[in-house]
Amino acid sequence: MTPILFYGVPEGCSFGSIVALEWSGLPYRLNRIGMPDVVSSDVYRPINPVGETPSLMLPDGRLMSESMAILNHIAARSVEKGFGFAPGTEKFDRLNQMLAFLNTSFFGAFSPLWYTAEHEMEPARKQALRDYGIANVEKVHATLERLLSGRQWLLGDGKSFADAYFAGIARWNDFHQVVDRRKFPALNALYERLQEDPAVRFAWAIEHQEEAKTTGGFLGHVSLDEALGQVKSAA
Amino acid sequence: MTPILFYGVPEGCSFGSIVALEWSGLPYRLNRIGMPDVVSSDVYRPINPVGETPSLMLPDGRLMSESMAILNHIAARSVEKGFGFAPGTEKFDRLNQMLAFLNTSFFGAFSPLWYTAEHEMEPARKQALRDYGIANVEKVHATLERLLSGRQWLLGDGKSFADAYFAGIARWNDFHQVVDRRKFPALNALYERLQEDPAVRFAWAIEHQEEAKTTGGFLGHVSLDEALGQVKSAA
Repeated sequence: MTPILFYGVPEGCSFGSIVALEWSGLPYRLNRIGMPDVVSSDVYRPINPVGETPSLMLPDGRLMSESMAILNHIAARSVEKGFGFAPGTEKFDRLNQMLAFLNTSFFGAFSPLWYTAEHEMEPARKQALRDYGIANVEKVHATLERLLSGRQWLLGDGKSFADAYFAGIARWNDFHQVVDRRKFPALNALYERLQEDPAVRFAWAIEHQEEAKTTGGFLGHVSLDEALGQVKSAA
Repeated sequence: MTPILFYGVPEGCSFGSIVALEWSGLPYRLNRIGMPDVVSSDVYRPINPVGETPSLMLPDGRLMSESMAILNHIAARSVEKGFGFAPGTEKFDRLNQMLAFLNTSFFGAFSPLWYTAEHEMEPARKQALRDYGIANVEKVHATLERLLSGRQWLLGDGKSFADAYFAGIARWNDFHQVVDRRKFPALNALYERLQEDPAVRFAWAIEHQEEAKTTGGFLGHVSLDEALGQVKSAA
């Protein structure tokens, strides 16, 4: 059995895991999960007890979740490709540091904006949360702009899985219409550069159900029923 | 030169990195950083460009930050101790998955509560953020209680760095007075069990400037001036 990645639509942060799988060249299949309905339903619970995407089913039926864990798992199996790195090296530390910043501060800045978009609320309370989110999104854009100084990619000297993950969450700024990304020139240039990447284009086409041309090891979609039949344990 | 961990007081999430260093047995020194004043000051910026703790200065003067990255770094150097694991193993994936959940969902649930505690705000706006934070903290406690079902430690079959990190952030519930932890019996039992751990007691004593007895490789405090003199680059 080939691994199955469960990705969320619309706008899932699982986008980065699709890009990483493409870059890795590893064989994989995909399962499409609607958000917020299917992802938070009982039927998906055996795949992911927290009700989130991405999840990854491994060849032995074991399941794992969380972008940080999935990207580290893919990295451990494709170190020779140069997008993830071996423990004990400086690059391993730098990748984990950047991924953690993106996964906590950058991702987290959007959380109140997602909350207001997905919940009914009094206008004044909604505005308080939205203002809080906007302030956070502005702050993390400024921080990332500073970290990118003199760098073409997030780690500086070449693409890594941090860039794959960034591609999937930086676009949330447009979805929620927060900052003008062009005010952050290095960040904006990185974002635009990633839009030209074949794996990023592929992931976008997959999400939008357009013709998607793999440059990696994508072997097609499977249904949730088929995937559920292969579950070993929701560890 | 031995590594230097920069830990924040009060209540830093760097607590988990102190515990992990103790468990690892690796030699290390500590530098104490006041929050929010010193941590967000220009003088600390060369240590951590994002203005957060923990940071770790390595023997060659290189700096790294983010709990996920630091815990993975310590794990790579102390795999034989059994609190962190080698890439390619199931335990490596499970530890990263649990650390990521704690570092994003669990940690992030408290973010609006920290924000209201550290900023002047209109009462109504403050209450909106606080209600949002409380709802999130309740949700992640319920999720973690479910994940802990039948387990003594976060990964089930033995202490890991996930438990070290949990010890440092679960206590925020008491600081912000959110939920009654006893309503989550498995989570509460884990929390109480950790309070008996010598490394957790040590980290607490360090934070509170009481007599601290290392059971690991702690070699004493250094000043920020001394540490700054050893900076190679703020990568």
